[in-house]
Amino acid sequence: MTDKIPVYEDIIKAHERILPFVHRTPVLSSTGINNIVGIHLYFKCENFQKVGAFKFRGATHAVRQLTADEAKKGVTTHSSGNHAAALSLAARQMNIPAYIVMPESAPAIKKKAVKGYGAEITFCDSTLEAREKTLDIVQQKTGATFIHPYHNFNVICGQGTAAKEFLEDYPDLDVIIAPVGGGGLISGTSIAAKAIKKGIKVFGAEPLNADDAYRSFKQGKLIPALKPNTIADGLLTSLSPLTFQIIRENLDDILTVKEETIVEAMRMIWERMKIIVEPSSAVPLAAVIENNRLFKGKKVGIIISGGNVDLDNLPFKLTH
Amino acid sequence: MTDKIPVYEDIIKAHERILPFVHRTPVLSSTGINNIVGIHLYFKCENFQKVGAFKFRGATHAVRQLTADEAKKGVTTHSSGNHAAALSLAARQMNIPAYIVMPESAPAIKKKAVKGYGAEITFCDSTLEAREKTLDIVQQKTGATFIHPYHNFNVICGQGTAAKEFLEDYPDLDVIIAPVGGGGLISGTSIAAKAIKKGIKVFGAEPLNADDAYRSFKQGKLIPALKPNTIADGLLTSLSPLTFQIIRENLDDILTVKEETIVEAMRMIWERMKIIVEPSSAVPLAAVIENNRLFKGKKVGIIISGGNVDLDNLPFKLTH
Repeated sequence: MTDKIPVYEDIIKAHERILPFVHRTPVLSSTGINNIVGIHLYFKCENFQKVGAFKFRGATHAVRQLTADEAKKGVTTHSSGNHAAALSLAARQMNIPAYIVMPESAPAIKKKAVKGYGAEITFCDSTLEAREKTLDIVQQKTGATFIHPYHNFNVICGQGTAAKEFLEDYPDLDVIIAPVGGGGLISGTSIAAKAIKKGIKVFGAEPLNADDAYRSFKQGKLIPALKPNTIADGLLTSLSPLTFQIIRENLDDILTVKEETIVEAMRMIWERMKIIVEPSSAVPLAAVIENNRLFKGKKVGIIISGGNVDLDNLPFKLTH
Repeated sequence: MTDKIPVYEDIIKAHERILPFVHRTPVLSSTGINNIVGIHLYFKCENFQKVGAFKFRGATHAVRQLTADEAKKGVTTHSSGNHAAALSLAARQMNIPAYIVMPESAPAIKKKAVKGYGAEITFCDSTLEAREKTLDIVQQKTGATFIHPYHNFNVICGQGTAAKEFLEDYPDLDVIIAPVGGGGLISGTSIAAKAIKKGIKVFGAEPLNADDAYRSFKQGKLIPALKPNTIADGLLTSLSPLTFQIIRENLDDILTVKEETIVEAMRMIWERMKIIVEPSSAVPLAAVIENNRLFKGKKVGIIISGGNVDLDNLPFKLTH
C-alpha cells in the first residue's frame, strides 16, 4: 500500500486532511531578482512551513492516516534532517510517540530540534546499515510504524499539496521547479501540477555533485548516488523505486547545477528577498540562472523547500 | 517648515501620496517565539520594504513633496546607511538626481547599493564636520535640497505610515515598540498610534550602548550620544530637537537593552521566523525579553525596521 503511485485525487484528499495542521505558505516575488535573471519568478515559501520545511506536509499526512491501533504504538524513522523534525512534531500533535534513529555524529542543533519536538532518539553509527539495523530493533521493541521520508504513498500525497496551493494562488505559472533529493517533493509536485494544468512544465533541479536522479532519468534505470558531496545537504539522498517511477513518467527534465551557482543563488535570495532558505532551496534558482534561455518569457514557480541552516556555518565565504 | 511637528492628519495625507510607490508590508507572527517569551507578538516587516528598510517611506514622501523647481535640482544627504539608499531610489523613481555624501571608509557593499540606485556619490572624511562641509559644497554646486534622515517633517510623516498600516491590519494591539536611532521612526509611529487608538502604549527600544534617547527622555533635555558603540549600527545616531520634542510628548517609556540580548533576539528571529533582519530590528524584541513582565497578557506590535546586513560579518558567534 505505501508504494502505490498516487493520483491527483489522492493529493486533494490529503490536502483536506492536513489543512487544519499545516500553514498555507505565502508566495513571494522579488523585483530585484526578476531584473537580474530577466524572468518572472514566484517563490512558494515552505521555509515558513512548520518545522521550517515542506516535510511537515508529508509527515502530517502519514501520521493522520494511521489506524487507531497503529497510532497508539507510534511512528519511527531514521533521519537527521527535516523529516525527523517533521515526523516528531506531527506525532506530538497527535499525542503519539515518535522514535527517531539518528547517527551519534549528527549536529547538536539537529538533535536538539528533534528532542524539542518531544521525540525519543536512539543513536547509532552513521552507516546506512547501522541505521537500518537500529530501526529494526526499535520497531520490534515498540511496534511503531516506519514512515519513510519519501518511499511512501501518504508522504508523497502530502508533499504534493504545496504545488496544489501554488497553482490555486498562481494559476498562470508556465513552469514549476522543485529540488530533487529522495524525490518525494518533486513526485507530489509533478502529479499535482500535471493534473491541474495541461501543458505546464515540471523540472527537477539537482546538484551536479549529487546527480543520481539526473542519471537515473537519462538512462532509464535507477542509479543510486555513489559519493554525493554537495552543500545542499537536503539533497544527498537517492531516489527510491517509487519516486523514480513517478519522476520518469512525469518530469519534463532534470537540470543539474554547480556548487558555486547554488551559493550564488542562495545569497541572492537572502540579500534580495530577506528570507532565510537552506542551500537545497536555492538549487531551483541556480537552475534558472544556469539555463536562463530555457525560461525566457515564462512565468516560473519555484518551491522553496526549507529554511533550516546552521547560522554558525554559512557558505557565503565561497563567493568572495 | 521641515521642523514643524506633524499631526496624524499629515500622516494620513503622506500615506495617500506614497501608496503607489511603497510596499504594504506583511505582519508576521511566530508560535515558536510567542512560546519562548510567553507574549503574543506581531512583527510589521519593513525588512520587506523597498531597499530593505522603512526609510523608503520617509524618503519617498520627502521627494514627492518637492516643488517642480526643487525637484529638477535633485536631493542630497550625508549618510552611508539605509537613508542614503532610500533617498537614491526615491529620487530615481522620479527621474531626479540624488547626491550622496559618504565617508571613504563606508563599506564597499553600501557604496555599491547607493551607486546601484543611480545616485552620485561624493566621498569625504568620516568626521561629522567633514560630512557637513562636503554637503554644503554639494548643495552650493547643485542647488539640491537637503533631505535630513529624521529632522524633517515630511520624512517623519512618511515613517508614521508603517504604524498606520500596522493598526489597520491589527487594531487589537495594546503596545507598539520601535527602535530609536535618530528618532524618525518612533516619532511617526507614536503620532500615528496615539491618534488611532486611545490608551495604546508606545515604547522606544534603544541599545544601552547608544542610550542618548533614554537619557534625554529621562532628564528632559536633549543629550547627544558621546561614544555610541553598538552592534545595532542603524541606531548610532542621536535625536534631533524635532524628534526629541515628539518623543518627549508621546512615548510611554524608552527601554534600553544589552548587546547580548540584541544578538539573542536577532538569532531568535532568524532561526524561528526564517526572515533576515538587521541588528537594529532586533532591539524591540530584546526589550520584550529583558522586560518580560511589563508585557504579560498584552498584544505587542514590533516594527522590524530593516533587513540590510553584511552576510560576511554576522554577529552570531557572540552567542556561543
